[in-house]
Amino acid sequence: VAAEEPIQAVSTSAGSSVAFETLLFNTEDNITTIRLNRPEKKNAITVTMYGEIVKALELAAKDDSVITVITGSGDYYCSGNDLNNFSQIPEGGKEKMAKNAAELLKGFVAAFIDFPKPIIAVVNGPAVGISVTLLGLCDMVYATEGATFHTPFSQLGQSPEGCSTYTFPRMMGAAKASEMLLFNRKLTATEACARGLVTEVFPDSTFHAEVWTRLKAYAKLPRNSLALSKQLVRHVERERLHAVNAQEVERLEERWLSDECLNAIVTFFQAKAKL
Amino acid sequence: VAAEEPIQAVSTSAGSSVAFETLLFNTEDNITTIRLNRPEKKNAITVTMYGEIVKALELAAKDDSVITVITGSGDYYCSGNDLNNFSQIPEGGKEKMAKNAAELLKGFVAAFIDFPKPIIAVVNGPAVGISVTLLGLCDMVYATEGATFHTPFSQLGQSPEGCSTYTFPRMMGAAKASEMLLFNRKLTATEACARGLVTEVFPDSTFHAEVWTRLKAYAKLPRNSLALSKQLVRHVERERLHAVNAQEVERLEERWLSDECLNAIVTFFQAKAKL
Amino acid sequence: VAAEEPIQAVSTSAGSSVAFETLLFNTEDNITTIRLNRPEKKNAITVTMYGEIVKALELAAKDDSVITVITGSGDYYCSGNDLNNFSQIPEGGKEKMAKNAAELLKGFVAAFIDFPKPIIAVVNGPAVGISVTLLGLCDMVYATEGATFHTPFSQLGQSPEGCSTYTFPRMMGAAKASEMLLFNRKLTATEACARGLVTEVFPDSTFHAEVWTRLKAYAKLPRNSLALSKQLVRHVERERLHAVNAQEVERLEERWLSDECLNAIVTFFQAKAKL
Repeated sequence: VAAEEPIQAVSTSAGSSVAFETLLFNTEDNITTIRLNRPEKKNAITVTMYGEIVKALELAAKDDSVITVITGSGDYYCSGNDLNNFSQIPEGGKEKMAKNAAELLKGFVAAFIDFPKPIIAVVNGPAVGISVTLLGLCDMVYATEGATFHTPFSQLGQSPEGCSTYTFPRMMGAAKASEMLLFNRKLTATEACARGLVTEVFPDSTFHAEVWTRLKAYAKLPRNSLALSKQLVRHVERERLHAVNAQEVERLEERWLSDECLNAIVTFFQAKAKL
Repeated sequence: VAAEEPIQAVSTSAGSSVAFETLLFNTEDNITTIRLNRPEKKNAITVTMYGEIVKALELAAKDDSVITVITGSGDYYCSGNDLNNFSQIPEGGKEKMAKNAAELLKGFVAAFIDFPKPIIAVVNGPAVGISVTLLGLCDMVYATEGATFHTPFSQLGQSPEGCSTYTFPRMMGAAKASEMLLFNRKLTATEACARGLVTEVFPDSTFHAEVWTRLKAYAKLPRNSLALSKQLVRHVERERLHAVNAQEVERLEERWLSDECLNAIVTFFQAKAKL
Repeated sequence: VAAEEPIQAVSTSAGSSVAFETLLFNTEDNITTIRLNRPEKKNAITVTMYGEIVKALELAAKDDSVITVITGSGDYYCSGNDLNNFSQIPEGGKEKMAKNAAELLKGFVAAFIDFPKPIIAVVNGPAVGISVTLLGLCDMVYATEGATFHTPFSQLGQSPEGCSTYTFPRMMGAAKASEMLLFNRKLTATEACARGLVTEVFPDSTFHAEVWTRLKAYAKLPRNSLALSKQLVRHVERERLHAVNAQEVERLEERWLSDECLNAIVTFFQAKAKL
């Protein structure tokens, strides 16, 4: 499923970087940064990007960075799953497509569950769908004031993923989690912070400077202490998170074959074509 | 335990309704509404009402509504368990009464744990006791500004139920949950919202209009997507919730036979008689 | 591990007190108060104090008080583990020291997990390290406005304890918990209250009066109802909390033997020596 091109590593005096098709990946000052890099598509996640993020997490887990950062290029953080992923039906038909997509998603989310170092999301703009739910598996989330958080699953005839059916109610209570996960309420950064989804919100104008000052300070903390502390926090929930991931993906595989979902996606593309 | 009268269904052009003794029950615009209907008694829950709510949830689960709403008639949402339930000692004595009440309560809470569609509480006024704890098992909670949330269990020599010993600490942390569940702190709607018990608070004057505008919009979302998403969220905790319910009910059965509880209830009725 | 001196009980008309070396312990108006009493050392917890707190909790569990209060003497609530605990290497070497400290800590935290009555922390000033994490195992936390909450584990090459790897993410969400537990963010009392770690914050000038008015009212509530309700809330998580405690302590035992930790502690004492 993952991209199969050989990965090219480049070392410079400022750090090292690895060449991906859909990501920028580099390590500097003990920080490995994974930057979603399809700004013209609002960093929507294609099949290739799912695979490359998993590969990037594998590299980050093994390199000698202290913390890992995930962020987006351009104005968007990430617009979620690229719905074009559903437009090419493989030889095995819709069922095969749904099965492949479920496998891909399950492995992708598992890579976040099992990531062994602190990972910090730097949300530089609007976040949609799986890019929102995955924040519940990150260790910290810094957001710019203009960021928004939107999980319109039922609108698209789908169901929640990224372990959000567990992490969101635990973090903000069922009454506020369902408003997002079932009823599509889009949050501002300030609202997301009040609900515990975001650690801190910064003004757009100073976001980059303030966040990177902190990240560089964190990257000087004792490496093993940080990694082992993060693993300790995750250990309590790891088994349950994998079980939740499996359930969510199983449910989505059914959803992707439902009329509700197919109709919603057709409507989405029709609306887009009219623009 | 449930009411045994035959239930009468009436269909009109505006929707269909079923006749209950203590509830108003109707379905319209894909919304089934269960309205507690003893306004002269602040919607206190009698033995008959416990049974009728369970029956109403069974009907709502099977009908073709998309969402279910629970609310109260008049100025109160619900004043909790009707303490008159404890005033008629059956032939088997206090022990039999406590055993019956425990069975009734366990099934009642279980009906909320297992309810398969999104259920939204529309809290139109003060809520007390089990009507507050059950909010932790609802998917969303809309409250009017004047609503209050009060769980005076220890004051009555009792102990918490409705799975609140699990849902409340998870939602608001132990320090704030114990203030309510052990130490009887009554919350305003705004406080309840800050603690995650309530999704959103509306001004009294616009409460009904604003809430129903939203509910009608939600009821147009894909039916299966909503139900399956809700079940996915609940699935993670279902087994644990049933175990918690069983523990809470077992403890309450002992409490109901304790001197602390009997004295508190006698004092309650004496104070009422003096008014 | 616990202090072995015989404990001396004194009864007066105002209540009874027990003599400890590092604590003030007394019972009055149905409230047992455990007051950390090394104000000249900011109530840092020595090996003796760990043992005495466990013994004090055993006494409070069995006496006829309704609630138990834990607080500090002087301006500090508690500055956490006394790092001098690490300065005397026993005959068995560092390994033996780490093993002893791990056993001591595990039993100390277990005493809070298993405490059978409501326990309320009255945080009269800055709290550091284990005195902060243990708040997640208390039933209520009242804080004075000037209190702060700081868990600089990674700064000292260590890892979180007191079940905070479970209670903190559950209470405030992972994004805010990691900011404290991994990245050493010190909170004000108001911030701690917004995150659910603190029940309520009071002005410094009225803190003592307001808090004790409430405590005295709580101590008049039905004794068994309170104890059984607290046990019900704890029961849901007890097994998991003991497992988390064991994991955290095992990890800390490794940490205490690591170069990162030893270097951090040496640096700490060097900085202190320069003052």
